[in-house]
Amino acid sequence: MKKNAFYAQSGGVTSVINASASAVILEARKSQKIGKVFAAKNGILGALKEELIDTSKESKKFIESLQFRPGGVFGSCRYKLKNIDENIEEYERLIEVFKAHDISYFFYNGGNDSADTALKISQISDKLNYPLQCIAIPKTVDNDLAVTDCCPGFGSVAKYVVTSTIEAALDVESMCETSTKVVMLEVMGRHAGWIAGSSCLAQKSHPNAPHIILLPEVNFNQLKFLAKVKEMVKKNGFCVIVASEGVKNSKGKFLAESGSVDAFGHSQLGAVAPYLAGLITKKLKIKNHWAVADYLQRSATHLSSELDRSHAYEVGKKAVEYAVKGLNGVMPIIKRKSSSPYKWEIVSAPLSKIANVEKKLPAGFISADGFGMTNKARQYFEPLIGGKSKVINNVNYQAGKMEMVPKKLNAWRSVSYTHLTLPTKA
Amino acid sequence: MKKNAFYAQSGGVTSVINASASAVILEARKSQKIGKVFAAKNGILGALKEELIDTSKESKKFIESLQFRPGGVFGSCRYKLKNIDENIEEYERLIEVFKAHDISYFFYNGGNDSADTALKISQISDKLNYPLQCIAIPKTVDNDLAVTDCCPGFGSVAKYVVTSTIEAALDVESMCETSTKVVMLEVMGRHAGWIAGSSCLAQKSHPNAPHIILLPEVNFNQLKFLAKVKEMVKKNGFCVIVASEGVKNSKGKFLAESGSVDAFGHSQLGAVAPYLAGLITKKLKIKNHWAVADYLQRSATHLSSELDRSHAYEVGKKAVEYAVKGLNGVMPIIKRKSSSPYKWEIVSAPLSKIANVEKKLPAGFISADGFGMTNKARQYFEPLIGGKSKVINNVNYQAGKMEMVPKKLNAWRSVSYTHLTLPTKA
Repeated sequence: MKKNAFYAQSGGVTSVINASASAVILEARKSQKIGKVFAAKNGILGALKEELIDTSKESKKFIESLQFRPGGVFGSCRYKLKNIDENIEEYERLIEVFKAHDISYFFYNGGNDSADTALKISQISDKLNYPLQCIAIPKTVDNDLAVTDCCPGFGSVAKYVVTSTIEAALDVESMCETSTKVVMLEVMGRHAGWIAGSSCLAQKSHPNAPHIILLPEVNFNQLKFLAKVKEMVKKNGFCVIVASEGVKNSKGKFLAESGSVDAFGHSQLGAVAPYLAGLITKKLKIKNHWAVADYLQRSATHLSSELDRSHAYEVGKKAVEYAVKGLNGVMPIIKRKSSSPYKWEIVSAPLSKIANVEKKLPAGFISADGFGMTNKARQYFEPLIGGKSKVINNVNYQAGKMEMVPKKLNAWRSVSYTHLTLPTKA
Repeated sequence: MKKNAFYAQSGGVTSVINASASAVILEARKSQKIGKVFAAKNGILGALKEELIDTSKESKKFIESLQFRPGGVFGSCRYKLKNIDENIEEYERLIEVFKAHDISYFFYNGGNDSADTALKISQISDKLNYPLQCIAIPKTVDNDLAVTDCCPGFGSVAKYVVTSTIEAALDVESMCETSTKVVMLEVMGRHAGWIAGSSCLAQKSHPNAPHIILLPEVNFNQLKFLAKVKEMVKKNGFCVIVASEGVKNSKGKFLAESGSVDAFGHSQLGAVAPYLAGLITKKLKIKNHWAVADYLQRSATHLSSELDRSHAYEVGKKAVEYAVKGLNGVMPIIKRKSSSPYKWEIVSAPLSKIANVEKKLPAGFISADGFGMTNKARQYFEPLIGGKSKVINNVNYQAGKMEMVPKKLNAWRSVSYTHLTLPTKA
């Protein structure tokens, strides 16, 4: 007797999260144990609201094309379940929906918070006696999941940042005699500096930028920073900076919060680059430019790392294998077997070791002055941006059929997530 | 008797300006009339300072590779010559340098201001009796040169903006239920909205973004803008905005100037996105994200339009042909013969018709409500981002030999361009 599967995307999307979706659906279609795959509309909310997309209505071609599609094709969400004991209602509703649609396999594609949600849901079978195989599928550009060597989504952002850093560096190098001498790129990374750190790979290319990398792991010291900028401009004629959005001052406060204010006196969150630009202008009187990559970096499928895409696909495939085997409360993770030549395999890890743990850049990755990366870091990052590249551009993406599964239950009480429309950039 | 050639890059660089350099050098190497090509270090300053790079020392392979190299490989500058009558000294110095290095061909690769400089230099042969063929080669991401149908450099930026808009739109579409509902991309274009306008091509792809395009040609009306954002969020669940850096209020003042102030109370120039983000947060209380592409857009060789690269190469090739033929004071420009199928040719145009003229978006390109583009605009933009794409990524660029031609003259008085280090973003 076949049972249906549930698949949901959670948290910030990546340029390869749909590759995992593609793998889950294609693999499930081959399975003798899995019936249909119902994709939740907008993550776990889709389960609560009984808004399920019937992926069996989508053509094989469309599902295959998801490997090369940015964003989260079924919609994602930021919504964290409470513990079973604190909010039993929500779990009972989930079981009600799973029962109504004969769902026994649960795939949750996300990061830290999502691993936590998946862990809680994995307890349904034990605590609430509903048979469910719950598998979390890793995804986060932040690369901050514990246990796994790297996270699907990260290699592509790293490739975007490395490529953009090289290109911007060649640009400012051309202009520095009479014009801009400092160029700055702000990248994601609120609490961990993996993305900014990966920019060190750009140093392999002429003109050996970035000269300064600012990380959340290293408290910002204004005097040292300005001295370094001055030194680099004097030495090279120009200076390229890559800054994590989460750079903090010595009191642990985000620079992005202590800096710019808008026309209404509000802090401009999430933009550390204009703050640093202001500093350089004011204190050094050096002309500078800055870019904030924001969503562009995590949705840049045109520049995805092929290896990253493979990782994303394979963890999706493995998730189905685990579920069918009867595993519960685990995540397929990437294990590095060697860096050069790069070799990897996928193994399972218990969600209890992953949920809510945030993996920062190891101290051994950060150079002594705090402005650069070590060779150890370079060895780690190097393979992740690689792989033979495909040309993914000038694409006109198509909408899927997105046919909804007919509802069988009463409407769920409206879900409260108005707090999530707060005017922050996080 | 062969005569040498001088080649210089001027103003902001593009992702294909080096394709023009490549063409000039390779074509000149084939010519019976041209000896060596000396590339000025940092634009026209290299001529004044007698800092000439001997391109004959570079391998054919290196020169060919320039077609796929971002930035201005010989260095560019922002420096405008005065009229001959106002500053005869500078022109006499140029002639002194040209004589010393047996230069009879002058190629100047730039935009509006550069066409003006080239025009003045083209008068040297008549007014100061030094035989010189002066040819300007078009280059500007701004696409604002008169007479030519489009400018080398623009098609690639347009492709970058279209691609990024599609990708960011798919991202925000995924998140809009519980999180970000408005995403904004700030692009270049201080006085003309060609770059922002080109983003209309993204509307061919799902999810049909951008919903709002803000142009320097249309005065910003806060009430109308906010109403449109609200309407789009209500209709689609999200809203994608592409804004020119040069959006102005009804008094003709840049929004980027009237908006954010940094920690020191200075205006943050060139960043209209955070200003608009502040407005949306304050007035509509809708969570939003913004990106400022800055240099990334004009140096994104990994995403260049192949057609744009062809344009850049062919105008360089034609420039050599014109010079050898004895033309002076002209620019090879791109003439569109048909849009569909796209056909083009290169013809010559007098610099007097191009220098200092700024071509804005025609009124017929802008939709009635001022927030979008017309079909006429779409027909114009469509072919420019096209062409069969090559994979240009994970490239480690090499430095050239950059061997300087031995100086023969006294040092030039130090050139004053300190005003150009002003802390503006322009």
